[in-house]
Amino acid sequence: MKNKAIAWASSALLVMLICVATIAQTPAKPMAEPDLIFPKGQRAPATNFTGTVWVQQLIEPDSAFNIPVGYVTFEPGARSHWHSHAGGQVLLAMGGIGYYQEKGKPIQILRKGDAVKCPPNVPHWHGASPTVEFRQVAIIPNTATGRVTWLQPVTDTEYNTL
Amino acid sequence: MKNKAIAWASSALLVMLICVATIAQTPAKPMAEPDLIFPKGQRAPATNFTGTVWVQQLIEPDSAFNIPVGYVTFEPGARSHWHSHAGGQVLLAMGGIGYYQEKGKPIQILRKGDAVKCPPNVPHWHGASPTVEFRQVAIIPNTATGRVTWLQPVTDTEYNTL
Repeated sequence: MKNKAIAWASSALLVMLICVATIAQTPAKPMAEPDLIFPKGQRAPATNFTGTVWVQQLIEPDSAFNIPVGYVTFEPGARSHWHSHAGGQVLLAMGGIGYYQEKGKPIQILRKGDAVKCPPNVPHWHGASPTVEFRQVAIIPNTATGRVTWLQPVTDTEYNTL
Repeated sequence: MKNKAIAWASSALLVMLICVATIAQTPAKPMAEPDLIFPKGQRAPATNFTGTVWVQQLIEPDSAFNIPVGYVTFEPGARSHWHSHAGGQVLLAMGGIGYYQEKGKPIQILRKGDAVKCPPNVPHWHGASPTVEFRQVAIIPNTATGRVTWLQPVTDTEYNTL
């Protein structure tokens, strides 16, 4: 009887070890990393942005196509300087939480799936929320009339008005 | 000694039950459903497509913007008819497996993250692979010169050449 109990305890120990090993291999929660579609690209020049911003050019304009298309990742707190486009701009929010503001209007929150038309020659900026990054596709149509005019940085006061 | 062994075996059994319950609560694998960014939209008209195609208009052109932007989901086997754009077209592959073909060239496979420039006035078609759906953003620049000219359907023979 004693031997049987010891044999049973040994088997139980083996099963426990297998259980523990299995649990150790199972991730505690789903991966936080989103299912990204485009590569993050290169660091954007600090001259036109506050904080860390990444740009992957998806379409370079050429003689047949006058629309540069880029994929931009703003790390938390990062944003563009104020700027305007002579031909306007289209933004497609791909993920995270974005801020978008046209001169004289309140900051607007952008979330995955939002599409924004920024009118020609209207000063505006876009970026991430303070704590969550923002990913966007940016399309600049009508570049025959000019691509972008950079203006002053977005101050912390302006950024924190929300 | 016997009682100790039984007590130990009982404890081991309890731990085993907890292990098994924990494993049972852990999902076997990550969810297969992709993390979709845009809504699927409405069924595309059967007059210009073969199979089931969904279109969500993201940007409607207006006096300031000459670029319609749409999100298109092709169910497996579905494809557009042959067509051309006077101002060309840009495709951004968002997920799944896509087919893209320009007249006189072989079918090209499109995968998540690919970006395609379809030149002005070149007949082409795009769609899903036979077994996996395809999701794309389609941008039509330069609509001042015309949006789309629809041509004949893509035959099964043409579709199955890959």
